[in-house]
Amino acid sequence: MSEKLEQLKERLGEVEDIGHAASVLGWDQQVNMPPGGSEARGQQLATLSKIAQEKFIADEVGRLIDDLKKELDGADTDEAALVRVAARNYDKAKRVPPSFIAEQAIATSKAFDAWLEARGKSDFSIFQPHLEKVVELVHKYVSFFPPGDHPYDTLLDDYEPGMKTSDVKAIFDRLRPKQVKLIKAIAASKQVKSDFLFKKYNEKKLNDLGVQVITKFGYDWTRGRQDKAPHPFESNSSVNDVRITTRYEEENPLAMLFSTMHEAGHALYEQGVNPAYERTPLAGGTSLAIHESQSRMWENLVGRSLPFWEHFYPSFKKTFASQLEGVSLKSFYKAINKVEPSFIRVNADEATYNLHIMLRLELEIGMVEGTIAVRDLPEIWNTKMQEYLGITPPNDAQGVLQDIHWSSGLIGYFSTYALGNLVSAQLWEKIKKDIQGLQDQIRKGDFSELLAWLRKNIHRHGQKYEPQRLVEMVTGSTISPEPYVRYLTKKYSEIYGL
Amino acid sequence: MSEKLEQLKERLGEVEDIGHAASVLGWDQQVNMPPGGSEARGQQLATLSKIAQEKFIADEVGRLIDDLKKELDGADTDEAALVRVAARNYDKAKRVPPSFIAEQAIATSKAFDAWLEARGKSDFSIFQPHLEKVVELVHKYVSFFPPGDHPYDTLLDDYEPGMKTSDVKAIFDRLRPKQVKLIKAIAASKQVKSDFLFKKYNEKKLNDLGVQVITKFGYDWTRGRQDKAPHPFESNSSVNDVRITTRYEEENPLAMLFSTMHEAGHALYEQGVNPAYERTPLAGGTSLAIHESQSRMWENLVGRSLPFWEHFYPSFKKTFASQLEGVSLKSFYKAINKVEPSFIRVNADEATYNLHIMLRLELEIGMVEGTIAVRDLPEIWNTKMQEYLGITPPNDAQGVLQDIHWSSGLIGYFSTYALGNLVSAQLWEKIKKDIQGLQDQIRKGDFSELLAWLRKNIHRHGQKYEPQRLVEMVTGSTISPEPYVRYLTKKYSEIYGL
Repeated sequence: MSEKLEQLKERLGEVEDIGHAASVLGWDQQVNMPPGGSEARGQQLATLSKIAQEKFIADEVGRLIDDLKKELDGADTDEAALVRVAARNYDKAKRVPPSFIAEQAIATSKAFDAWLEARGKSDFSIFQPHLEKVVELVHKYVSFFPPGDHPYDTLLDDYEPGMKTSDVKAIFDRLRPKQVKLIKAIAASKQVKSDFLFKKYNEKKLNDLGVQVITKFGYDWTRGRQDKAPHPFESNSSVNDVRITTRYEEENPLAMLFSTMHEAGHALYEQGVNPAYERTPLAGGTSLAIHESQSRMWENLVGRSLPFWEHFYPSFKKTFASQLEGVSLKSFYKAINKVEPSFIRVNADEATYNLHIMLRLELEIGMVEGTIAVRDLPEIWNTKMQEYLGITPPNDAQGVLQDIHWSSGLIGYFSTYALGNLVSAQLWEKIKKDIQGLQDQIRKGDFSELLAWLRKNIHRHGQKYEPQRLVEMVTGSTISPEPYVRYLTKKYSEIYGL
Repeated sequence: MSEKLEQLKERLGEVEDIGHAASVLGWDQQVNMPPGGSEARGQQLATLSKIAQEKFIADEVGRLIDDLKKELDGADTDEAALVRVAARNYDKAKRVPPSFIAEQAIATSKAFDAWLEARGKSDFSIFQPHLEKVVELVHKYVSFFPPGDHPYDTLLDDYEPGMKTSDVKAIFDRLRPKQVKLIKAIAASKQVKSDFLFKKYNEKKLNDLGVQVITKFGYDWTRGRQDKAPHPFESNSSVNDVRITTRYEEENPLAMLFSTMHEAGHALYEQGVNPAYERTPLAGGTSLAIHESQSRMWENLVGRSLPFWEHFYPSFKKTFASQLEGVSLKSFYKAINKVEPSFIRVNADEATYNLHIMLRLELEIGMVEGTIAVRDLPEIWNTKMQEYLGITPPNDAQGVLQDIHWSSGLIGYFSTYALGNLVSAQLWEKIKKDIQGLQDQIRKGDFSELLAWLRKNIHRHGQKYEPQRLVEMVTGSTISPEPYVRYLTKKYSEIYGL
């Protein structure tokens, strides 16, 4: 067995190497590449992804997996997990013909360009035929797989292994009324003041503060770096090379700080994976929801908490003395947690965010089921925005055209954002039980015990456990909405005096 | 034929893509990579190079080349050149077993570490056993090829296609006495003053000037960028993505400016290749000597010329008023062209540089012939330094251990530096005939006609012609030393009043 395992690991290691090379190329494309390099870079990435696919679906890989599966089945070892994850990915990869991947790459590349133009002109009709093609290809993709309980299951499983559409629907059905009720209660309360957040803040000083904060979080600069890019993201090409980007937004300067904490949360997860998993399919976060639970935890449960700002606000106020003149810690804390229905998901506060997601999930399921036609999306979008958040987008750029995902063929992805929020609160309840004096530690700017807990319970495992299993192992429950509702209710009751 | 050509181009295009991906990874390794990423990056690069090799030496590639060779043989078209270059590279690649490449990669990786330590401690004995292994592998490498006139021919041909050891020897034999004579004449003259070059110069201001200069040269920033790195180099992953790096040296601040011009010279060559050659083996410079002819031309024949400084010195002197107080244009010009025998090749002036190369060539040929033992290198090095330059290194760090090349298995490479100098002067004589008023243009900071000439006569052709053929097509003569000697003699006669 050991020899076959070594052979499999060597082959999978090569596939990982190619994927990691593509990561570096993708990072460079966003951070450094001169505009002229665009076409060649596209070809390089296409070639790498084609070769990785060829190498992975080789028959010999399938034989090794089959042999090893028989021998290791059911064991709770790293080796058994490795073979299990490889088998799952292999089965998926084998079902999708290379010609389909090429067709999809071309279609989404065109759809992306069309989306950019459509969003710029706020004209959905430019994007519509391309999205119709993307949806057609999604149907084709689903057809490669054995029918599940729901066609959307196939898509969801790519981002959230083991998760069913019915699971997500059930979770969201429990969450929605409570979240809507909370938002209504807040809307009926006196709004908090936040104008001082939107003054001019010096970019370099803000960035320095972000660096200082994530250094305290435990981000390891010997195994990562931070750069400026048009969009904030985390990217890794090894457990030991995990990079993040940041940006400064004139109209919302403090977003830089919170998105830095967010991306650092992703990066801390990747940096914390068991180094023995390097070059295997067990490296990396186990699902998008678990990943998002980490980024949202550091951004929100830590970074928008009162203890956090009890520590950082004095020096922050000193740095931005004129902007924050007369603004108390409490006022600042309330301002960064202001709840207000808004059009753009990425700018949404914690209380309204999940409703943006639920809306998208319903539209996606409708498109996949065939009950919603692409041409009707703008109208349905606007109706649902009114229903959930009580506002109607003034145009499609601020409505159905705001997100990049569909143009890139990413259908089945959105719900993981909301699930991540829920998981972050589930973990937080458990962490507060396990770490005595956690809030006091945060108040002192000490995050070491928190990070150690996450390392041990979440990060280290990489992809060894599927997300629902991992959450259950750690918290005693699969993904559930109640802790998040409890968290929001407590937080906003204090802020808004509900 | 056209279908087979398309098939070949598609296969070669993939190999190019992988090589270009490796270029990006290599560039990133020098410019951005956090230290933790080192091991994973090594594995990624090893995997890419292995796959590129596998893809390239596939039997089908050989069959396509053979079929196309028969059909296209002798034609002067791009297609025939593409097949010719592919055939040459294929034949070479087929002869070298993958197991040898792996063995060499491991040996040179260890040799590199040993060299770093040996140079740090100035202790050749640390490097000796590793260099012996490298030389042993070089002998093995040579044995894979049919015997040529000289075993060194095989090595030289990898860097300078079509060039023979006897050609280089003959060229150097004609060059050496004239160059030694010139140096002796200079040594007998009054030395020029240069202390003001080694004062403290502001790094940012120097860098800005470098950027300004290469922008005037015609470096296209939409298809390139400049970064800081421990060593200056040029790296490209496309005709449209050609990057350079620079560094600031405390002890020799103006080196930043000249090395920027040097690397821009390499980059202008790569940016000027016919875009139709993208993703084919015809992309890129045709040999190291031709490449070096471009970098040295911009650095020396342009950048250390009087007309160049007639244009730039007034603003330069304004920027560095205190450092250059009382320094006339003529004094500055003389200082940057000061001739003085020195230990370190990369710091050598134009008059002594080639002698450093000749020394290395003799040692390399001796090692390859087996007439020089590795253990005797330090002594022979020092003896030859005394013979050629009249100085003896105080230690091996400033002698035999100074260059990285041998530790990386690069034997057969050095002579291209000197050949590049010679070619730069050959081209320059022709350029001066073709461009009326070239010096006046340079005096006005206008390099457009010069660049257009180089584009048309050199850059555009990429690897279509072998170096000797290209030089002969353009200048009417193969590589020869006389123009360079004429150039040096004229220049230094004026500076030193010979």
